[in-house]
Amino acid sequence: MAASSSKAHTCRPQERWKIALITGVVLIGLICHQGCEATDTDIALDAKATLNHRIQSLDLLVFVFLLALTVLTIWLFKHHRVSWLHETGLAVIYGLIVGAIMRYAGSSTPLVHMQVEPEGNPTYTDKLPPDTLWFKYPVNQTNTTKLPEGIKTYAYVFRGQVHDVDENEIDLKATFDPEVFFNIILPPIIFYAGYSLKKKYFFRNLGAILTFAIVGTTLSAFLIGGVMYGCAKLMPKYLSSSLSFLDTLYFGALISPTDPLTILAIFNDLRVDVNLYALVLGESVLNDAVAIVLSGAIQNYGEHYSNTGEFETTAFLRSMSDFFSIFFLSLLIGAAMGCFTALLTKFTRVRDFPLLESALFVLMSYSTFLLAEATELTGVVAVLFCGICQAHYTYNNLSEDSRQRTKQIFELLNFLAENFIFSYIGVSMFTFPKHHFDAGFIITAFICAALGRAVNVYPLSWLLNIKRKPKISTNFQHMLFFAGLRGAMSFALAIRNTVSDARQTMLTATSLIVIFTVIIQGGAANFLLNWLNIPVGVDDETEQLNNYQVHSVYNSMDNSHQPPSDGYLQDMEGGRGKTRISGGGTDGILDTPIEGANGSLSNGATGSHHHRRNSHEKAILARIWGNFDTKFMKPLLTHSRPTLLETLPNCCNPIARLLTTTQQLTQDGGEFRRVDSDSDICIDNDSVNGLTSQTPGGPGPAGGGQAPGRRNSLSRSNILNETNHIANELSLVTNNFM
Amino acid sequence: MAASSSKAHTCRPQERWKIALITGVVLIGLICHQGCEATDTDIALDAKATLNHRIQSLDLLVFVFLLALTVLTIWLFKHHRVSWLHETGLAVIYGLIVGAIMRYAGSSTPLVHMQVEPEGNPTYTDKLPPDTLWFKYPVNQTNTTKLPEGIKTYAYVFRGQVHDVDENEIDLKATFDPEVFFNIILPPIIFYAGYSLKKKYFFRNLGAILTFAIVGTTLSAFLIGGVMYGCAKLMPKYLSSSLSFLDTLYFGALISPTDPLTILAIFNDLRVDVNLYALVLGESVLNDAVAIVLSGAIQNYGEHYSNTGEFETTAFLRSMSDFFSIFFLSLLIGAAMGCFTALLTKFTRVRDFPLLESALFVLMSYSTFLLAEATELTGVVAVLFCGICQAHYTYNNLSEDSRQRTKQIFELLNFLAENFIFSYIGVSMFTFPKHHFDAGFIITAFICAALGRAVNVYPLSWLLNIKRKPKISTNFQHMLFFAGLRGAMSFALAIRNTVSDARQTMLTATSLIVIFTVIIQGGAANFLLNWLNIPVGVDDETEQLNNYQVHSVYNSMDNSHQPPSDGYLQDMEGGRGKTRISGGGTDGILDTPIEGANGSLSNGATGSHHHRRNSHEKAILARIWGNFDTKFMKPLLTHSRPTLLETLPNCCNPIARLLTTTQQLTQDGGEFRRVDSDSDICIDNDSVNGLTSQTPGGPGPAGGGQAPGRRNSLSRSNILNETNHIANELSLVTNNFM
Repeated sequence: MAASSSKAHTCRPQERWKIALITGVVLIGLICHQGCEATDTDIALDAKATLNHRIQSLDLLVFVFLLALTVLTIWLFKHHRVSWLHETGLAVIYGLIVGAIMRYAGSSTPLVHMQVEPEGNPTYTDKLPPDTLWFKYPVNQTNTTKLPEGIKTYAYVFRGQVHDVDENEIDLKATFDPEVFFNIILPPIIFYAGYSLKKKYFFRNLGAILTFAIVGTTLSAFLIGGVMYGCAKLMPKYLSSSLSFLDTLYFGALISPTDPLTILAIFNDLRVDVNLYALVLGESVLNDAVAIVLSGAIQNYGEHYSNTGEFETTAFLRSMSDFFSIFFLSLLIGAAMGCFTALLTKFTRVRDFPLLESALFVLMSYSTFLLAEATELTGVVAVLFCGICQAHYTYNNLSEDSRQRTKQIFELLNFLAENFIFSYIGVSMFTFPKHHFDAGFIITAFICAALGRAVNVYPLSWLLNIKRKPKISTNFQHMLFFAGLRGAMSFALAIRNTVSDARQTMLTATSLIVIFTVIIQGGAANFLLNWLNIPVGVDDETEQLNNYQVHSVYNSMDNSHQPPSDGYLQDMEGGRGKTRISGGGTDGILDTPIEGANGSLSNGATGSHHHRRNSHEKAILARIWGNFDTKFMKPLLTHSRPTLLETLPNCCNPIARLLTTTQQLTQDGGEFRRVDSDSDICIDNDSVNGLTSQTPGGPGPAGGGQAPGRRNSLSRSNILNETNHIANELSLVTNNFM
Repeated sequence: MAASSSKAHTCRPQERWKIALITGVVLIGLICHQGCEATDTDIALDAKATLNHRIQSLDLLVFVFLLALTVLTIWLFKHHRVSWLHETGLAVIYGLIVGAIMRYAGSSTPLVHMQVEPEGNPTYTDKLPPDTLWFKYPVNQTNTTKLPEGIKTYAYVFRGQVHDVDENEIDLKATFDPEVFFNIILPPIIFYAGYSLKKKYFFRNLGAILTFAIVGTTLSAFLIGGVMYGCAKLMPKYLSSSLSFLDTLYFGALISPTDPLTILAIFNDLRVDVNLYALVLGESVLNDAVAIVLSGAIQNYGEHYSNTGEFETTAFLRSMSDFFSIFFLSLLIGAAMGCFTALLTKFTRVRDFPLLESALFVLMSYSTFLLAEATELTGVVAVLFCGICQAHYTYNNLSEDSRQRTKQIFELLNFLAENFIFSYIGVSMFTFPKHHFDAGFIITAFICAALGRAVNVYPLSWLLNIKRKPKISTNFQHMLFFAGLRGAMSFALAIRNTVSDARQTMLTATSLIVIFTVIIQGGAANFLLNWLNIPVGVDDETEQLNNYQVHSVYNSMDNSHQPPSDGYLQDMEGGRGKTRISGGGTDGILDTPIEGANGSLSNGATGSHHHRRNSHEKAILARIWGNFDTKFMKPLLTHSRPTLLETLPNCCNPIARLLTTTQQLTQDGGEFRRVDSDSDICIDNDSVNGLTSQTPGGPGPAGGGQAPGRRNSLSRSNILNETNHIANELSLVTNNFM
């Protein structure tokens, strides 16, 4: 402790790019110009700053090239229809390769640190260590005369705690700040998930999605936490001692959220059954939000509420209330900002200038994230619900140009962010200095992850199936289980905290689980879909046509609208021996009209009856919201009909008039509805005003460059004709196959 | 020096947002989780980290709201056709207001620093101060038992030199890193400038543009440097002593580049004469590049080459060679990367997947910047020429979707970056701690800036007018002088270095010049255009039609193609009393057919003769390049005809075949040319293959949301018909007014 230590640590090149990532974005301008009185030290500092900048640029460049390479290879794979490896898997593999190269080839740059103490007699009056240290350093002047000014003062800013003073390996400069994930990478991904959500199918399956996401994730987290804690007792001493129940619970929370990316890309390519798609997407979008809040609550429990680390009721309750209040307040802020943007775009004519409009849209969406973070809520959750509201309301008010532009921009951002994070998962396996391999823990983690997923899917499906007659079939359950890939959120949560051995082991296990599930499960999804006889090649469109045809189109605005009977075209693919779930239904569940998987056709009428009964029993909440949405929210926030003048009681007429635009009053009744792909929050709100054609896609993942609204120009009779025509054709097809 | 100093500095709230800006992007995760053994200090640190994060988010939020407000007000102004204040001016004004509020209202947070010295006996073996300091700090345990582990080690990272140890005001945490401008804000602006450049008019006026940009900027820099240095001797002692000639020269270099933004927005709105537009745009795009390299060379001179600070021939020559080598190597890298992207998009079918294609495009463009920075060149310059190449070659290979998308993305990025920087200029006037007001210097700077602009415009115009018969009219010269607004680049260069009083005074002067020129000159541009009788309301289109009609359309591929005679429709606006310069001509200059400004009409035939003579005399270099481009570059890099098979000598056939795509061979001859708005690098390359209609706009600033290629479907006869029709109409108009 007495001897001064000025050790030269090696900053391995594989760690450089992480520095680059942190600092490359905000390059620290170390350039200290001294006019002409440059000293040796100044010149050396200057040279070092230049070198740092170069290295940062170079590392970032390697990474950008890696992404470009990924893009090219993805194209090649798509071009040659390679289905056994998907783009995220590819990004991970490239990341692994580059990480290995970075690790095992390359020189090192020295990184010097020095132990210091306060000048003179230290008086510590504060609880906190100082924000900056000022350090006097003797400087070698170029002109050899050593002046008294040869001492310069340098400033050092607080970085964090050094946990392992003895361990030379720890390299503060190379610790990639995991907050980047939460503040840069995740928000666009999550926002896009919300913005591109196909709300129709999402709300149809709302019950199941909410059950899986909220109950399932929590259940899974606690189960994994418990089992891991039990197993930890069997692990090496150094691990088990540092592994508290809170730690394992945290692990449970972080490993529970599923990542939709790979699996949905496959589903999309194969046009898999839309309800299965909605279940997987909806669940994984929501369980990301649940997991981040849950893990935050667990952290809080450990840090603020619990004194002993053991179970305490009050601390537990406070954490629970944290969980719910943070989740719902974040939701509220996100939704409010989305609605505010809708109001802005509705009551200004900013849509005349698409560039301004798009800029406004982007700025408002980003400010939602910031607002939530500034109020100590969860920005990621807020941004998700902001995205949903933007798609549901604001999107309707945007000009055609802005619709395209915002969709495309967020699609691209999402693509880049996703591939970045998966590449980084690969690279970090080799370069992140705080990995800790422990075979026992990793194996347990793998088993627990599968177990957690199973406990999420099977019992809850069973529960849902008890409550509702049309069941989620066993094959669908298997697929749901199998679709439980882990991804960005798990990794981001795991890398956020790598202080202890236990946490480092968790990071390693999480990385491996992500890599395994993305590459192996993602690759096998295709085969499994086949093997489980999940219907693929389903056209979103036919289902919609189906809806149009079957239920009455002129429902009044009260709740008496007819539920659709969807059994009608139930087995358009039946001849190909696929099971088929009926699309549409106000109820939030899947039904399996076919018990035997192969080739059998269910009775359309029966399916229809099921629906009719269930829609009234089950989806009351959803229907109430749907009506409220149609009557008040949409007229207020968009240019849709009916206007508030019609839906509000007479006494509110002046206000209603104020909130109704001329456009709303003068439009021909369909113009602004038509483009809203997701206006049917509960299937049929659209039919309230007579049939308006729905545009598939909307700001959807597949809708990227396609002209939205292929049927924009169709009149009602056209649609009916077309529907009849297609229905006839299809019944012909099914007849042929029977 | 002996007493320990732990002073609490106040970090004024107006400085907070700058912290937010730096760290908000990459949030430093200070969260140090300690499991359950949390100490007072840990909890306090945690709370402080949370608070910091909240404040950062809040500050950034204020800024995002500011931008959103700007967007809304811009809309309002556009909506009500307010022309006396433009969006950049607006951003500056809002910035000023918010800056003032931040400064004069708000509480303060304490920022603690401590003077430290090496532990034990210091041994300084290195030239450089250590990268990190490790500092032991006694920690208050929550459980009152003071353990020996109650001492924790915290790490501090190197930040920079403290220049004013005595001055309490200096607040390192609040120094906004100016490198952000060079690495985040400027690249998208500059790239977009290159990408959206209307190359046709740019290359037509290449001679004048290059003269103004390279010669003019250098001249202006040296003149301003000299005059300022002279005047500095009359200034207060503390300033004049710290103001070396290099400093004033640096000031000259940074204040010389003009910013096209405001003025071009106005030109765009009014559809001002395209050649004037091209001159202003081209010059300001290039002089940004010249200025950044020039100022770098001046810095290098001071730091590395000169020992005394006085003039040294070798040092000067080395700086000059720096200047040229950095400029041209950057240009080369940018162009090479652009061409590489063109090759990638040509020889892969990545265009089948627009999202991948757009991602590739963005990644390659960004990697150009990184590559240049990694090789110690100037990223900004590289990115400019990359943008030009991307627009000239790659754009042709992109799918329609990617064209739209890339245009729109960069347009939006550009818009946000520009408004951000102008808002920041306003805000920083109040919040940046290193402003230094000195009335004398500021007034001198204003005068010098005007002088520098004058010396750029008038003598060079005179020189150009000597060399070439068709002159740049006096009114155009006045407008060019007046269009010399200063903007982003000047500010970014000024804020990069604020070490000395002199530099701080420069920053203040630059900020004020930018604010003044943007608000006052920008606002007055409209009136001046009127007053100087500059033609407005010129349709890009008519000029093109004019070109089509007049010159022969079936020129062979040799150089014998006919230059256009553009005098034909020379005064379509003549009746409204505007001067008119003839559009088109291979020569890189403007002509002024009308000497008296009002209502006179020039003789079309004379104009035409001028052109015919001059195009052969003047633009040989441009024509050689144009031919080379059409014969080799375009066939190699795009799908254009003629193919390399036709243009390369026979011996190279195998290679030529390899480099020619099937698409190129099988296309119907016009498909891929049509969309290339800028293929006429020297007016008429297009006519080589017969008449292909040109799409105005391309990735142009005004082309944002418009469907590119309104005349895509027109056949040659259509165009000729249309042309004749319009020509007839126009001659009618002119006849009526004569």
